[in-house]
Amino acid sequence: MPVNLAAPDPASLLPVAGVRLGIASAGIKKPGRRDITLIELAPGSQVAGVFTQNRFCAAPVTVCKQHLVSDDIRALLINTGNANAGTGEEGLDRARRTCAAVADLFGIKPEQVLPFSTGVILEPLPIDKILPALPAAQTDLAANHWSEAAHAIMTTDIVAKGASRQAQVGGKTVTVTGIAKGSGMIHPNMATMLGYVATDAAIAPALMQRMVKDVADVSFNCVTVDGDTSTNDSFILIATAQAGNAEIADAASADYAALKAALSDVAIELAQAMARDGEGATKFMTIAVEGGRDRAECKQIAYAIARSPLVKTAFFASDPNLGRILAAIGYAGVSDLDVNTLKVWLGDVLVAENGGRAASYTEAQGAAVMKETEITVRVVLNRGSVDATVWTCDFSYDYVKINAEYRT
Amino acid sequence: MPVNLAAPDPASLLPVAGVRLGIASAGIKKPGRRDITLIELAPGSQVAGVFTQNRFCAAPVTVCKQHLVSDDIRALLINTGNANAGTGEEGLDRARRTCAAVADLFGIKPEQVLPFSTGVILEPLPIDKILPALPAAQTDLAANHWSEAAHAIMTTDIVAKGASRQAQVGGKTVTVTGIAKGSGMIHPNMATMLGYVATDAAIAPALMQRMVKDVADVSFNCVTVDGDTSTNDSFILIATAQAGNAEIADAASADYAALKAALSDVAIELAQAMARDGEGATKFMTIAVEGGRDRAECKQIAYAIARSPLVKTAFFASDPNLGRILAAIGYAGVSDLDVNTLKVWLGDVLVAENGGRAASYTEAQGAAVMKETEITVRVVLNRGSVDATVWTCDFSYDYVKINAEYRT
Repeated sequence: MPVNLAAPDPASLLPVAGVRLGIASAGIKKPGRRDITLIELAPGSQVAGVFTQNRFCAAPVTVCKQHLVSDDIRALLINTGNANAGTGEEGLDRARRTCAAVADLFGIKPEQVLPFSTGVILEPLPIDKILPALPAAQTDLAANHWSEAAHAIMTTDIVAKGASRQAQVGGKTVTVTGIAKGSGMIHPNMATMLGYVATDAAIAPALMQRMVKDVADVSFNCVTVDGDTSTNDSFILIATAQAGNAEIADAASADYAALKAALSDVAIELAQAMARDGEGATKFMTIAVEGGRDRAECKQIAYAIARSPLVKTAFFASDPNLGRILAAIGYAGVSDLDVNTLKVWLGDVLVAENGGRAASYTEAQGAAVMKETEITVRVVLNRGSVDATVWTCDFSYDYVKINAEYRT
Repeated sequence: MPVNLAAPDPASLLPVAGVRLGIASAGIKKPGRRDITLIELAPGSQVAGVFTQNRFCAAPVTVCKQHLVSDDIRALLINTGNANAGTGEEGLDRARRTCAAVADLFGIKPEQVLPFSTGVILEPLPIDKILPALPAAQTDLAANHWSEAAHAIMTTDIVAKGASRQAQVGGKTVTVTGIAKGSGMIHPNMATMLGYVATDAAIAPALMQRMVKDVADVSFNCVTVDGDTSTNDSFILIATAQAGNAEIADAASADYAALKAALSDVAIELAQAMARDGEGATKFMTIAVEGGRDRAECKQIAYAIARSPLVKTAFFASDPNLGRILAAIGYAGVSDLDVNTLKVWLGDVLVAENGGRAASYTEAQGAAVMKETEITVRVVLNRGSVDATVWTCDFSYDYVKINAEYRT
């Protein structure tokens, strides 16, 4: 069961001026399942994205990258139940046909539509089911359908994921609302998943790509469930420029910082929700690595711990078998790491120092922390001043069950 | 249960002239468990080893590396039940005290003893239990105790692992016998585990390190269970020079090749046995990547597939959810890989080509292969002439169970 996570109250997901969402059932995997989401953007909206680095990237990812060159995106189409990945030329053709169909409905060009798919890999996208469902999704368009969209993009997710914030930017109140899906095949870069965060703030087109990367680096690129990087990972940032703020044109400005903070808040909440809803999760783990020489080595160590099946099963068992954490630190690949100068904390308990177990440590202390459902592992490297944090979950019988039975 | 693996018939493990093995019970973890193994080497034996690259390497690994400088090793001491890893200065001191005790018994110097430990990390080595058990191990020394030693070094292994070969080298019959343990925390470099392979062949001291690396590269460094690299991995090659062959002094000679083949045969059988006995294993998987530009990229892709929890759970379920294999190929990190020119086979079935599912592929074909207990995944990259093979096992409920309950 998800760890301290509930679907957001629909009323808490604030409309973003210039964005409308519509849902429909195409019956891609199951009859009656609401599996199609359309997002309509007002003219003048800016869109930027970061995508999976998987070489077997899905057809819609390829098409998205091509269409984002145009800089005048007006609609997004998301289907669940089929990833349209590992589908070759035919997959690209089918992704483009869905864009063309959306373009026809909206009276825009196919290049103004971004397609997204999530679900089973290596099976043809059933456009014969998707295309007939598009008019119903268009009819359903409404500014307050964020919660419905959060549900419609789920796959093995148990809980829908969405969050909103408001902030003052340039003397105006701007709104940020985001939704995401993902609970397995989760590992950066990207860490997902599909994620969509929209704001009504105005930001210069030239800053959009920087902003989406800035936000991804502190949120979706800090989460792992199973270390598998999906073929379809996409994180999209939308800015509709309807809040009335003066367009943010300087990345060093207070306005940029204020907007980035609000966007990051939403994206971090969504990213953490993915770990909380990780397949089979019973615990939410924060791995904080501090005092490193650079962010890369901190992340390397944090991910080695967060990915280790041995560490994850020990957390599932609430067993303070903490040597497994030390082993993961040791094989993380930081070749000049001095294990005698680092310290490891479990919650507030000092576990290891001077290359071994801390003299003050007792099994009872470790066992007490391990009983919690939210646990922080802190590794202090004492060789620099840089930190990195990664969120993950434990590894349970249910992870195996979910992934052994996914298609059946 | 181990996949098509049984403990070797004790009579099949041939004595190696110059090597005697003795077993005893120290009660490290459980009373009465035979957990101490002594290996005595005749004067003139050559010893070389390769060890874990984990920065949190265990105290005995550090001591082994120091003692191997001396080039006159006469005894090995192995304990199970405690890894003596993450134990700081005190751990080094205790490892050295076990060497000193063995040296006293044998009338040799402590630097002529190599110590090895396997078991729980981060707990002090109980030398108060180990030292009193050493005389009994010495009394037990015999040339035909390979099978007993194979059992005594097990931890979570279900089946003892040992193998023998004989070969003609320089007109003489030489014998090779090896034992190994390991079924979890298995990933190169090294891939283990403890492994000991001994031969009575004569080989020049200058070639020993090359030979142990040559053999490890085609055996223990080609296996993974969970991707966790242990703190204690050690593979030791022993050559007692009692077979009467002319000392092998040239790595390009036919004699070197013949001995290497026999040693590799034994080491590969042991390495595969570790995957067959992988924690919770129900299937034995061979991942062969062919037609790469170099061995590194082939191994990178093979390990991405072999380590993926999503691939491993699909094999456990006998579910041909083969998109997961494509996804793993895609995120393996070969940044210029063209997914449109590679081909993927499951057994004899062509699964993917031209960036997607093969036109000839049917679910029934995939399902038929997936029912087998021994399955080969073959990826042909079509961009070079180099191959690499990795062995692994699937990921089952029992993996979680074993690792959640290991210490309880």
